[in-house]
Amino acid sequence: MRSLSEILLEKKMDHALLTSLASVRYFGGHTVSIETGPSPFAPLASALVWVKGQEPVLFLAEIESADDVDAGIRTHTFPGYTYDRPLRSLEELTTLLLDTFSRLPPSIVGVEMADLPAYVLESLGLNCRHLKFQDITLELAGMRAVKQEDEIRAIRSALKLCDLGQATVKGRISPGLTELEVFSEMRKTMESAAGTRLPLLADLVSGVRTAGVGGNPGASELRNGDLVISDIVPRHQGYWGDTCNTCAVGEPTDEQRRLFEGIEFALYEAIDRVRPGVRACDLDSQLRQRVSALGGTYPHHSGHGIGLTFHEEPRIVPYNQTPLQPGNVVALEPGIYLEGQWGLRLEHTILVTQTGAQILSEFKHSL
Amino acid sequence: MRSLSEILLEKKMDHALLTSLASVRYFGGHTVSIETGPSPFAPLASALVWVKGQEPVLFLAEIESADDVDAGIRTHTFPGYTYDRPLRSLEELTTLLLDTFSRLPPSIVGVEMADLPAYVLESLGLNCRHLKFQDITLELAGMRAVKQEDEIRAIRSALKLCDLGQATVKGRISPGLTELEVFSEMRKTMESAAGTRLPLLADLVSGVRTAGVGGNPGASELRNGDLVISDIVPRHQGYWGDTCNTCAVGEPTDEQRRLFEGIEFALYEAIDRVRPGVRACDLDSQLRQRVSALGGTYPHHSGHGIGLTFHEEPRIVPYNQTPLQPGNVVALEPGIYLEGQWGLRLEHTILVTQTGAQILSEFKHSL
Repeated sequence: MRSLSEILLEKKMDHALLTSLASVRYFGGHTVSIETGPSPFAPLASALVWVKGQEPVLFLAEIESADDVDAGIRTHTFPGYTYDRPLRSLEELTTLLLDTFSRLPPSIVGVEMADLPAYVLESLGLNCRHLKFQDITLELAGMRAVKQEDEIRAIRSALKLCDLGQATVKGRISPGLTELEVFSEMRKTMESAAGTRLPLLADLVSGVRTAGVGGNPGASELRNGDLVISDIVPRHQGYWGDTCNTCAVGEPTDEQRRLFEGIEFALYEAIDRVRPGVRACDLDSQLRQRVSALGGTYPHHSGHGIGLTFHEEPRIVPYNQTPLQPGNVVALEPGIYLEGQWGLRLEHTILVTQTGAQILSEFKHSL
Repeated sequence: MRSLSEILLEKKMDHALLTSLASVRYFGGHTVSIETGPSPFAPLASALVWVKGQEPVLFLAEIESADDVDAGIRTHTFPGYTYDRPLRSLEELTTLLLDTFSRLPPSIVGVEMADLPAYVLESLGLNCRHLKFQDITLELAGMRAVKQEDEIRAIRSALKLCDLGQATVKGRISPGLTELEVFSEMRKTMESAAGTRLPLLADLVSGVRTAGVGGNPGASELRNGDLVISDIVPRHQGYWGDTCNTCAVGEPTDEQRRLFEGIEFALYEAIDRVRPGVRACDLDSQLRQRVSALGGTYPHHSGHGIGLTFHEEPRIVPYNQTPLQPGNVVALEPGIYLEGQWGLRLEHTILVTQTGAQILSEFKHSL
């Protein structure tokens, strides 16, 4: 597993300015809150600066808690919220960054071009003409595709919350409840267990909506005979978990049982095939063939890496010829959807080990 | 109320490329989902392009629903999620933007520098050397400080959800429940009424935590004698509502009653003083004096504009000499905090009318 210094060296870069939520957590330990969108107080809440030969520095808006910053990371705060003078958080952060970067000799700085506000790059560009800024996003994504021990532990914690969520959905669904009511119970159980609010991406759809893969819970009432897809993706301490179950309100039909068992078989067969060196596209193709043999298909990936974002490398998709590596954490999620009727999908998150796969999610899918 | 064309003319700009969530909703009608952070599929989900003399065009990632786009807005979609080829949403959007901007004669484009990814501005800069890009953020914020009729209706809808949320908190608090459990009930009521998930910023703190102004709900159990601050800020169809109440678990003390009544008096007195021409700083100062006379203070603004963001102009703060104008929608929120003991805060959202203020939130504060 390569370090940031190695990546910079390989890409002939000298320094780095990292501003994505993933990088700030990965290299600095700090998790930025995301549930309410961009902050009017601090549009960029945090930035990590890595100057060649120096320890990294995490610039952190004062409104952010520094409790989770990794030991050994130097922290500089900058104003976030102010009421005695105008809000100028982004400008003040940029001034601090200029102070660092303007002192450097001519050199190349790796940046994350999709996650850096144009304001910052323009100011740096105008005031530091001796520096070149180059995108390092893809290299960082490649690096993060192989997880370290502490990352696997963090993903396991998020998956424990998924397990709880799945048990709640399975235990609670009954005719007359709305999707939102089931969702609310599920989220409450998970948040109570975590002792905190959780950013939560979730498909929770019932009835004919299951034919459309997913979506947010709505006001639809569950009825006897409905399937419910619950794809639960919470973020806990910066890391995401991801599992999906499909269950029936009342008694499932024979056809629903047949396809549930078929998808479950396909999923476990794929998990059995996982080992280092297996190409993502081959895993994808085998899953699609198996679902095709059941008489259906799915209009989405077969799986994806998960960690500091809820969809990352390695993507398990037709074009991706990358071989799996030990340390990849992958959510596999074959499904089958009958147009205008219903659909189902089952998902586990697994770790690629030296010899195969270990399932990190502990719940049992149950129709 | 000025139009975008008037602002561009006044600032000697010709065109605009608008990428903030607020602008996309304001000029295009589309609300971008925010609860789960930046999308790995489409880092920039939407952009509005306004070329001089032409109708505006909304560029929209395919994963976004176009159902809410304003009639009369031309929509161009670009790939968001793909599984048959690599994710390149931002690159593909940028190609479309280049296609528009590279054809223009030498001219000036207004952009939102804090809400535009550096990737986009750099590509435009390198490939359209005949164009200048200038920040238009402050002018747009000034424009949005005066609300139109449909915006006031939207804010009222969000405030109705706040009213429901406040009633739920007041009705539910009892010893032994955790902050998270009360929060969960409150959110469920609001989401059920809205029929959809709601982005929700909320202070829900109890006991000694109320002395610290606010914070997310946690695992603390309510106890007899606690105060509970519930500051509820949901986003509904793009617009935010904002109210705050403070209530007691069990019987409040005489001192709690005295300060509750004092803050309530201060709030209504300030509302009575609101009219066009009153300067924000004077309203702020009167509120601070009144709270000071009660024997305390508050380490935050006295109020703020609310609309497409949860904190905008006019800020009711010491430095802001801007006079209030008809159409401003302002959340006023004096509070008082006794260090290490408890605090309380009360808030209403009001509309500045031609002759005074109209309270848009309908609940009654109740200790």
